[in-house]
Amino acid sequence: MQISAAFDGGNIEVLGIGDHGRARLAIRKDNQSDFYQWFYFRVSGARGIDCRLEVVNAEGAAYADGWRDYKPVASYDRVRWFRTDAAYVDGQLIIHLKPEQDTVWVAFFAPYSMERHQDLIARCQASPLVRVEVLGETLDGQALDLLHIAASHPPPPRQAWIIARQHPGETMAEWWMEGFLERLLDEDDPVARALLGKLTFHVVPNMNPDGSRRGHLRTNAVGMNLNREWAEPSMEKSPEVFLVRQRMDVRGVDFFLDVHGDEELPYNFIAGCEGIPSITEHQMALLTRYKAALVTASPDFQIEHGYPVAPPNGANLTMATAQVGERFGCLAMTLEQPFKDTANNPHPTTGWSPERCRKLGRACLDALHQVVDDLR
Amino acid sequence: MQISAAFDGGNIEVLGIGDHGRARLAIRKDNQSDFYQWFYFRVSGARGIDCRLEVVNAEGAAYADGWRDYKPVASYDRVRWFRTDAAYVDGQLIIHLKPEQDTVWVAFFAPYSMERHQDLIARCQASPLVRVEVLGETLDGQALDLLHIAASHPPPPRQAWIIARQHPGETMAEWWMEGFLERLLDEDDPVARALLGKLTFHVVPNMNPDGSRRGHLRTNAVGMNLNREWAEPSMEKSPEVFLVRQRMDVRGVDFFLDVHGDEELPYNFIAGCEGIPSITEHQMALLTRYKAALVTASPDFQIEHGYPVAPPNGANLTMATAQVGERFGCLAMTLEQPFKDTANNPHPTTGWSPERCRKLGRACLDALHQVVDDLR
Amino acid sequence: MQISAAFDGGNIEVLGIGDHGRARLAIRKDNQSDFYQWFYFRVSGARGIDCRLEVVNAEGAAYADGWRDYKPVASYDRVRWFRTDAAYVDGQLIIHLKPEQDTVWVAFFAPYSMERHQDLIARCQASPLVRVEVLGETLDGQALDLLHIAASHPPPPRQAWIIARQHPGETMAEWWMEGFLERLLDEDDPVARALLGKLTFHVVPNMNPDGSRRGHLRTNAVGMNLNREWAEPSMEKSPEVFLVRQRMDVRGVDFFLDVHGDEELPYNFIAGCEGIPSITEHQMALLTRYKAALVTASPDFQIEHGYPVAPPNGANLTMATAQVGERFGCLAMTLEQPFKDTANNPHPTTGWSPERCRKLGRACLDALHQVVDDLR
Amino acid sequence: MQISAAFDGGNIEVLGIGDHGRARLAIRKDNQSDFYQWFYFRVSGARGIDCRLEVVNAEGAAYADGWRDYKPVASYDRVRWFRTDAAYVDGQLIIHLKPEQDTVWVAFFAPYSMERHQDLIARCQASPLVRVEVLGETLDGQALDLLHIAASHPPPPRQAWIIARQHPGETMAEWWMEGFLERLLDEDDPVARALLGKLTFHVVPNMNPDGSRRGHLRTNAVGMNLNREWAEPSMEKSPEVFLVRQRMDVRGVDFFLDVHGDEELPYNFIAGCEGIPSITEHQMALLTRYKAALVTASPDFQIEHGYPVAPPNGANLTMATAQVGERFGCLAMTLEQPFKDTANNPHPTTGWSPERCRKLGRACLDALHQVVDDLR
Repeated sequence: MQISAAFDGGNIEVLGIGDHGRARLAIRKDNQSDFYQWFYFRVSGARGIDCRLEVVNAEGAAYADGWRDYKPVASYDRVRWFRTDAAYVDGQLIIHLKPEQDTVWVAFFAPYSMERHQDLIARCQASPLVRVEVLGETLDGQALDLLHIAASHPPPPRQAWIIARQHPGETMAEWWMEGFLERLLDEDDPVARALLGKLTFHVVPNMNPDGSRRGHLRTNAVGMNLNREWAEPSMEKSPEVFLVRQRMDVRGVDFFLDVHGDEELPYNFIAGCEGIPSITEHQMALLTRYKAALVTASPDFQIEHGYPVAPPNGANLTMATAQVGERFGCLAMTLEQPFKDTANNPHPTTGWSPERCRKLGRACLDALHQVVDDLR
Repeated sequence: MQISAAFDGGNIEVLGIGDHGRARLAIRKDNQSDFYQWFYFRVSGARGIDCRLEVVNAEGAAYADGWRDYKPVASYDRVRWFRTDAAYVDGQLIIHLKPEQDTVWVAFFAPYSMERHQDLIARCQASPLVRVEVLGETLDGQALDLLHIAASHPPPPRQAWIIARQHPGETMAEWWMEGFLERLLDEDDPVARALLGKLTFHVVPNMNPDGSRRGHLRTNAVGMNLNREWAEPSMEKSPEVFLVRQRMDVRGVDFFLDVHGDEELPYNFIAGCEGIPSITEHQMALLTRYKAALVTASPDFQIEHGYPVAPPNGANLTMATAQVGERFGCLAMTLEQPFKDTANNPHPTTGWSPERCRKLGRACLDALHQVVDDLR
Repeated sequence: MQISAAFDGGNIEVLGIGDHGRARLAIRKDNQSDFYQWFYFRVSGARGIDCRLEVVNAEGAAYADGWRDYKPVASYDRVRWFRTDAAYVDGQLIIHLKPEQDTVWVAFFAPYSMERHQDLIARCQASPLVRVEVLGETLDGQALDLLHIAASHPPPPRQAWIIARQHPGETMAEWWMEGFLERLLDEDDPVARALLGKLTFHVVPNMNPDGSRRGHLRTNAVGMNLNREWAEPSMEKSPEVFLVRQRMDVRGVDFFLDVHGDEELPYNFIAGCEGIPSITEHQMALLTRYKAALVTASPDFQIEHGYPVAPPNGANLTMATAQVGERFGCLAMTLEQPFKDTANNPHPTTGWSPERCRKLGRACLDALHQVVDDLR
Repeated sequence: MQISAAFDGGNIEVLGIGDHGRARLAIRKDNQSDFYQWFYFRVSGARGIDCRLEVVNAEGAAYADGWRDYKPVASYDRVRWFRTDAAYVDGQLIIHLKPEQDTVWVAFFAPYSMERHQDLIARCQASPLVRVEVLGETLDGQALDLLHIAASHPPPPRQAWIIARQHPGETMAEWWMEGFLERLLDEDDPVARALLGKLTFHVVPNMNPDGSRRGHLRTNAVGMNLNREWAEPSMEKSPEVFLVRQRMDVRGVDFFLDVHGDEELPYNFIAGCEGIPSITEHQMALLTRYKAALVTASPDFQIEHGYPVAPPNGANLTMATAQVGERFGCLAMTLEQPFKDTANNPHPTTGWSPERCRKLGRACLDALHQVVDDLR
């Protein structure tokens, strides 16, 4: 049996490989950080063997509670990802897997490589509605891609900003982007056409290319949690946020959605910016309406479970949603998707999956369509 | 220049072909009927020529008013159908076309062949949710296909019936079916999954195979307008209706949608069964809610324009929607799609198109999802 | 159980349907002819049942010996065709089939519909190398399509003519065409590019549209065996041959290949025109070389088995290959493919199949490439 | 204008970006090596601008003569790669490019990423003919993949070894592999079936994963030119060669093909192992026959131009072909493909291209089929 993770987004350290498909593994920490939980590796030479892969440092992961009831994803063809068995025992994540093929890829969630990201950019720019702008370089020298999407000249004056994957291990955020962008750019889709008549879109499909390529869970190349950098971003530590926020200041923001994944909660849910100093009733009402509209559009979404709402003035303004909500006085939201499954609507074979992420991305356009006329 | 229509769904009579791309054409009547308006033919040998194709009997067509502001569809690859120029002058439809390729196919709306119908049946039966039942034979000996769709055993007790293309020239009805069925059978789609938890579906993608293959506008092999046969269908004249209604009596109907096209009105709209003797407030309320939900789901749908509502007891019980609404006391509706375009949301290059039909089919599941809990 | 054949290319008469999946069937004769052997029908409502379908008039078929060791093809998805079991007993063909799906299509060989033919024409005309010419109308009013293929202006002076499916039930001939045309039009293929530098191609993918659509075995709409019409074709009885031969006289022929299927012999093989009055040593040598080159290019082809060679002056000049060889003094050949399988290279699941036809079509370009410089 | 190469296989150093689309660039050397010539980068923000990209250190590249008459490849969609203009002037490669899109990818030849390599492995393992074996780890920790391909048990005793991309910048070698493997695994292809009846295949699609991912031209992670390591490979410096040669010693070799690209010569050609001490007439005859068969199979191949043949005993046994030919006494060859185009058969828009590589890979099976019976 061979195990390797030396590829785009890979993450595992092989401590030892024993007989009978037994291996001891550890997840590498994000560079200059203590965060870790994302893993992605390839197992070869174990066809037909009952493998037992022990992730020995699971207990120290960023969200150890997330291991409860969690099942890793695996794939033979790198296209379809199924759930494999696992148990969280004595602080270790024990992955059980009996490969049907010589090689199997295993991950925390279906991976989304930077190669695929570049393919997404290339596909989007084929649309006449899209302009690609490279806002600048990441600390590893990668391009930070921003898509401007407008159907008319001049573009509509109201500005929608949608960003994803500040936390690189939350790959579901970029799978969501595929569905969102595919529908938004579909010139036959009536909802997309209606929205493009009313909004100019600014979309950052991947806020954290360096963390993505390095196989990080939460941080960029130098260990910064980008979603704690929105109050005072810097070109030295968090150019990704600095550059996006700077551009927001130029263009304005009338709608903001920041797409994430949550390691623990088995639900899709939205967190707003209720705790910001300047919160208005209009912002609150829009938030309520958007969430209700998304419940209507997708039974995969729900509003019962989620994060506790911040008390008045209790918002953390270093986070994107709070900062943007405060800075621009607009509807600003964080969308969380599960690593596991939606407990309100479970899917036995795949759990939460790339295809379901895409569909939620599509449904978010339906919800936006219900509130667009009242954004300002 | 050569013009032929001797193929599946073809309809044209060539009266004469002159020089310089000029041709005199007539649409053939439906067999044993005076209805005609569907045309579908192939033009060859006219690359680069400004053709003028005169449909000389346009005035006598079933819905001559439909020719106003109407533009035929054409295709070089039989996949993408664009609109070509036309004018309705002195009772003739004059089609202007300058082919960029040696061969071009021209039609009243994007054709949907019986070969494609069989491919649709074959594709659907690959889903584990589907059972295909042949209800019987048409008068031309074709199979009358019914799809039973259920996700559980026993299947949910409430029964949804969706039928399309009673009028064979209204091909948009079967394009709609493609989108509707594709989404309903998508095991990752949360709306489809929710609906399949609550309803058993019975779907007839094509109520009129004989008219479809013969290139008819409105009738079956022996000239019967099937949507006037629902009161007293017979195996001799209208087996398509007889067999479906018979099966409805066995299974019951809790939701009914009959999908059509309208030659004149440039809108998607729904007609209910308000004029039936037994109409209830519940039926009326469901109708209103369904239509409102569909407006929400698709800006291609609207409720301002449509047919006049029948007065109390003014319903024509020979029509499917009225008969089913009366017979089963359920929400029963006719969905009409335009041959032209949606004036409320026009699409300059394609007008109303197969792809937009498919998307409306998908959106109709959203609307059903909003009313499903109150169907009974 | 329901059985129907009322579709493009369908052929069966249902004499009776009994219990337990038993049915008595007869193949319909070609119109105005005694030939019959092609069958193509759809069976529904027999999932999981051991069906016994008795073709009671098998003995009278055109090539009753062909039933020995023959297995029909069947498909659930109309894309993949597998072989089902059968036996030829007491003059009946007994088809054994236990469908895994509600609907299964069964045929003598994988069908090739006229809808697919039109799609093929549409696809080819997208190539800048192709001009589509409709030579005229068949007796049923269908277009007789000829593809002119040339890569330069002026086109190369040597003319290659390739025709297929004079006998409509030999659908393998048009499957062969798909592979042949796909490769010939592939601008990255070095063999195709080399050939297009030296030859102008004239291709008739389907010589017999009427027989194809009617579900005939060997004849056109009025019962004429087109491959016995080449000496004296007429617009009244055999316009397909008349029009093609007329155009050959205008353009000349330097290479001729006529693609067929053989009901009996389980081999791919070539028949030449050795028995024509004017046969030359050069023609003989080219024939030998072409066949040897095709053996090299494709192990699916062989030269041991085939038709007896006609003695000197023993050729039947009513047949295409003999007439063209005599008329133009060129290499002229008939390519025969099996209905069954290649006994020299059997394929257990599919037998001879559409995909293998396509590959033989590709390989025939390799063989042509080996002789092209010496055609004249 | 932004230029970045921080991705899988990327290579460029940006020395400076000026106004009006002007940039000064340098190609990075392979790690621990002086070799360089591979470049691959992404240019953004230059739509519609006449860019002048100066590769200032072109003169010191491994094969500076290769820059003459050379044109880089570029792509907007990362699928189709076209040639852009360039000139080699005063020791600099000046790339002229006027992008039609916001982002364009530019490279020495169409890139082949390690993500795509993993997709290739995943696709191959879906075939029942394939076993994937990871021979060991590269120095960067990547898997060294070997595909065993056999159609029967026990597998045929004669062993064919085909390896590619010892030099990672010669990406055409892995494009060739796609065509070779696709055809070899096609169970409908008669040539593949014939070969699989006679040979067991061992295929290494990428001999140098580390150099590939690092964007190297010729060496592995520690600067070793693998094609000079075959006499004395070591696990410390050249594990890729050590592991493959070790496995060859176990299994034996009856046919060997090593696939490369050549920076200078605008031809496909083959170099044999004529200069090895033990060369036999049989080996020489097989070489001549194989090359002649490949000329027959593909006009993209030729035998006039190539490397000078080594004199008797003049072979360099550190090279794969010479070492394998000497070690196993078999037919051993190096296939070279151009970076530029085939001067004997130029393709104006693409030059030598991934699609043409694939087709040459397919044709090499035809040639092998001509000699297979005489390999021993």
